[in-house]
Amino acid sequence: MSDSPLTVHVPLDAGRAYDILIGRGLVAEAGARAAALGARAAGIVTDETVAALYGDRIRGSLEAAGLRAGLIAVAPGEASKSYAGYAAVCDGLLALKIERGDLVVALGGGVVGDLAGFSAATLRRGVRFLQVPTTLLAQVDSSVGGKTGINSPLGKNLVGAFHQPRLVLADTATLDTLSEREMRAGYAEVAKYGLIGDADFFGWCEANWRGIFSGGPERDEAVAICCRAKAGVVVRDEREDGERALLNLGHTFGHALERLTGYESARLVHGEGVAIGLALAFRFSARLGLCSGQEAGRVANHLALAGLPTRLAQVPGGCGDADALLDAMAQDKKVRDGALTFILARGIGQSFIAPGIDGAAVRAFLEDELRAG
Amino acid sequence: MSDSPLTVHVPLDAGRAYDILIGRGLVAEAGARAAALGARAAGIVTDETVAALYGDRIRGSLEAAGLRAGLIAVAPGEASKSYAGYAAVCDGLLALKIERGDLVVALGGGVVGDLAGFSAATLRRGVRFLQVPTTLLAQVDSSVGGKTGINSPLGKNLVGAFHQPRLVLADTATLDTLSEREMRAGYAEVAKYGLIGDADFFGWCEANWRGIFSGGPERDEAVAICCRAKAGVVVRDEREDGERALLNLGHTFGHALERLTGYESARLVHGEGVAIGLALAFRFSARLGLCSGQEAGRVANHLALAGLPTRLAQVPGGCGDADALLDAMAQDKKVRDGALTFILARGIGQSFIAPGIDGAAVRAFLEDELRAG
Ligand SMILES: NC(=O)c1ccc[n+]([C@@H]2O[C@H](COP(=O)([O-])OP(=O)(O)OC[C@H]3O[C@@H](n4cnc5c(N)ncnc54)[C@H](O)[C@@H]3O)[C@@H](O)[C@H]2O)c1
Ligand SMILES: NC(=O)c1ccc[n+]([C@@H]2O[C@H](COP(=O)([O-])OP(=O)(O)OC[C@H]3O[C@@H](n4cnc5c(N)ncnc54)[C@H](O)[C@@H]3O)[C@@H](O)[C@H]2O)c1
Ligand SMILES: [Zn+2]
Ligand SMILES: [Zn+2]
Repeated sequence: MSDSPLTVHVPLDAGRAYDILIGRGLVAEAGARAAALGARAAGIVTDETVAALYGDRIRGSLEAAGLRAGLIAVAPGEASKSYAGYAAVCDGLLALKIERGDLVVALGGGVVGDLAGFSAATLRRGVRFLQVPTTLLAQVDSSVGGKTGINSPLGKNLVGAFHQPRLVLADTATLDTLSEREMRAGYAEVAKYGLIGDADFFGWCEANWRGIFSGGPERDEAVAICCRAKAGVVVRDEREDGERALLNLGHTFGHALERLTGYESARLVHGEGVAIGLALAFRFSARLGLCSGQEAGRVANHLALAGLPTRLAQVPGGCGDADALLDAMAQDKKVRDGALTFILARGIGQSFIAPGIDGAAVRAFLEDELRAG
Repeated sequence: MSDSPLTVHVPLDAGRAYDILIGRGLVAEAGARAAALGARAAGIVTDETVAALYGDRIRGSLEAAGLRAGLIAVAPGEASKSYAGYAAVCDGLLALKIERGDLVVALGGGVVGDLAGFSAATLRRGVRFLQVPTTLLAQVDSSVGGKTGINSPLGKNLVGAFHQPRLVLADTATLDTLSEREMRAGYAEVAKYGLIGDADFFGWCEANWRGIFSGGPERDEAVAICCRAKAGVVVRDEREDGERALLNLGHTFGHALERLTGYESARLVHGEGVAIGLALAFRFSARLGLCSGQEAGRVANHLALAGLPTRLAQVPGGCGDADALLDAMAQDKKVRDGALTFILARGIGQSFIAPGIDGAAVRAFLEDELRAG
């Protein structure tokens, strides 16, 4: 097995603790790792793009380790995270005769992870699950924490289950084939961890972000730091009743932008919405007198340097007026009784949950942002 | 509230303990009971037949108690327990703006309970859930234990979740409108509890079954005894790793018969398959020298007296030969490595899990049964 993958342990209770391994070349070890979990068969769920790149490698690894392996590939993109995609994956796994003691392997980005995870959570009322995330976003965010699910025509991620993986293999070499744009989008989530609670890590990112993009040892290190941060939050608040909401820094604005651009990835991908949302969250915090304008500027500068958008005017095709934005935010799950819950910051690495933020203050802020262009 | 519903407490851990209330008229109390759980809105899931009979009553009760209530009715019958039915129910609940703190109310038989329960388990990753079972089968079996799910084209109940209700209201007066046939089918499951582990209860059934059918106090008593028996098993083995398999007495044969009759309820409903399966399980046990032929005869006689089928020849349209039956049994989830796991009995009330039963012995038995007609 690989010399020394970095390891992040997720110490959940009730026999659900698991490891996240981070390193180059882990896809080729999936078989040995799956065999070590005692599985005899594996249903690999992936998308067509990732299947073409890594499908044979993972299947070969599983078969070489003595597992019966089959592969189910959905169309790439968010549209597969649907009721129809879910039925297709479940029936595909059943056709592969995946039983309770076997493994569902999610090979791909967050779309595949969420879809395969939900299928694993509910197939025969729960099958074991191995995550092999292949996007930066999936490696630092969606593959950690056990949230799985699909979209409804009535909204994103509205149907799902909590189902923890038995193991996560984050093969950072797979990111070498990821598009620049998807890489940047994932990087917004990396920066987010620094902004939430780790000012030192944000400073480290400012100095080392190029190594993350180019695939140096900084990449593995950054993924491990992010996984450790997320795992800590998840262990303390698995069901998102409290602290876990901090992970939504930048996301109330970001989700609204995704909604207003119709979830068309040609216009805006999730991480781009998050980047704008992070910049807005800091500028809004500065406006409320919570943090300095200088810090808000530092946040936006770094994201822009990494090639990410930080202003509403950068949304291709526009995002409507302040009312449209407020309406889109009000549809978010984190809204209670009309008042908005935001994650705001007293500075870089000092985020906190701010419930009951008045809609009027948000509107005034957004109007100024839109005017500024 | 009702004078004195019978109460069965289900002492699950981690805040999941709940009560099953059994009595006449409980539908009209659903509102007060739901309000006592702190819910502000309820999404009632039901089928069109039950909606016509009890929809207004339960909705009126919920609204009188100050809850916002909406109703979603699927077509009656097993076909609604599908991916499409699941999507329709989830989207219906979302359109009713059911949030995590609200309630999903399942009003109907086992089809509605399984479908609504799975929707509640996964909507927003878990919404609270109230069962109002209106068939005898649902009152004594499917509403207790937290198993929820839907069918796949590849098999029954292959997709689902464990999701315990917050409360079960078994209104035994609703059974007054149930067809004779559905009543008898549910009664097969009632008798099953006696046969599994309670010889006294089986004797009581022999003496009192007419009161269960006619709606006397015996009905409430029988439902309570069955729920207590099932709750005990569920608490000791929630995830069906062991003892819970006992509840499958009669079901390995029964499921095979359902499969061979294409799940056409015009030919055979679940409880009828179970009745034949119970009789077969005892006769097979007698043949293996485990229990007396006299006891096997006593089982079949009682089921027949209640109007239930007890022989393969009674399956309308026939059930194929011994090989077809064996194949259908081998598709059952309870099969491991070719050997069949049966629930057999050393006598009435003395059932046990018998793994590794040889297919050849089963075939010889079935051939004799088919010859006997
Ligand atoms: N479960 C959670 O906690 C959680 C958290 C954050 C986001 N999410 C979900 O994650 C999803 C977004 O994930 P994503 O950004 O990874 O999108 P994605 O899965 O759609 O992947 C993006 C694109 O990259 C391609 N791709 C993936 N790996 C590749 C590789 N190694 N080389 C080349 N191309 C590759 C894919 O085919 C796809 O076209 C959203 O549905 C979001 O809701 C879930
Ligand atoms: N979850 C579990 O643990 C579990 C256990 C056993 C069975 N099940 C499931 O339960 C289902 C069968 O349940 P069922 O037998 O209740 O079938 P069902 O829900 O289809 O109901 C049978 C028929 O009776 C009608 N009906 C219901 N209540 C009525 C009333 N009060 N008056 C008049 N008509 C009424 C229905 O409209 C339906 O046509 C199957 O899908 C089976 O898999 C689940
Ligand atoms: Zn995100
Ligand atoms: Zn049954």
